Amino acid sequence: MGLLSKPIKTLDDLFVHHLQDLYYAEQQITKALPKMISKVSDPQLKLGFEVHLGETRNHIKRLEKLFQMHGESPKAVTCPAIDGIIEEADEIMGDASDQEVLDAAALAAAQAVEHYEIARYGTLMAWAKQLGRSDCAEVLAPTLEEEKATDAKLTQIAEAHVNRVAASSR
Amino acid sequence: MGLLSKPIKTLDDLFVHHLQDLYYAEQQITKALPKMISKVSDPQLKLGFEVHLGETRNHIKRLEKLFQMHGESPKAVTCPAIDGIIEEADEIMGDASDQEVLDAAALAAAQAVEHYEIARYGTLMAWAKQLGRSDCAEVLAPTLEEEKATDAKLTQIAEAHVNRVAASSR
Repeated sequence: MGLLSKPIKTLDDLFVHHLQDLYYAEQQITKALPKMISKVSDPQLKLGFEVHLGETRNHIKRLEKLFQMHGESPKAVTCPAIDGIIEEADEIMGDASDQEVLDAAALAAAQAVEHYEIARYGTLMAWAKQLGRSDCAEVLAPTLEEEKATDAKLTQIAEAHVNRVAASSR
Repeated sequence: MGLLSKPIKTLDDLFVHHLQDLYYAEQQITKALPKMISKVSDPQLKLGFEVHLGETRNHIKRLEKLFQMHGESPKAVTCPAIDGIIEEADEIMGDASDQEVLDAAALAAAQAVEHYEIARYGTLMAWAKQLGRSDCAEVLAPTLEEEKATDAKLTQIAEAHVNRVAASSR
């Protein structure tokens, strides 16, 4: 936490901190996805990333709404977790010398991103309910569902062709 | 990838790289969990972390078996994702000035760790099957189940008392 950050004394403070963490994470994801889109070759995977980029921009707007509902200005705090996950995605895509293997690596990296978000939005939903903020939980719910649906869609693309094509690439 | 790392040309190379990534991640988790155990106060949460520390040591042994089955020596490659997730856990536990809020933060951080592992082991399972290595998939399966069960157990502990106690703490 930076010197000017608000101390975390209550569950409400913790909720706001995690909103800030996700606000940063979603912004980093909107920067990372266009690079991933340009690097992958599988058309369904490329389309899946493009659709999710649009959803991610919407998740940022929902987070801004949540800050407003909480009487806070939108603020991002550095999230080392998403930085690490994206750094690892960059590394593995840089290291894969075969296009089909790169596609499988990028898909797996995207699923690591999705799972981070599923964990965080799931926690925020639980905390919102505990804090008696069902209004906030209602704003969080569609984002959590979209993250889960994206993860399931990626599994489907992997099983349908990306993994098979990567396995047959020599 | 370091200068001396093997290039990633095939799905098999990618599988081995992710084994190395998880071998590093599981080792970092065995170092992080004792600190988390010492910092949390909720007895069920403490016990949950202790049980999972034992499981994690077993996951490392299973990874060593998988390296052996793959004709490779066990080797860890730095995993920026788990480093980032653990750094974030350390930060939030350091910033929480209330014990009950710290418990809720630690539980959430542990769920982020679990979700990273669920994503990675899920990917490894899919790749093992695609590579015709059902023997490797069989070794991976119990670990994936334990990560999912730990995540579910943490949700149960959060909902049963940790979140409620944190919400009532002022």
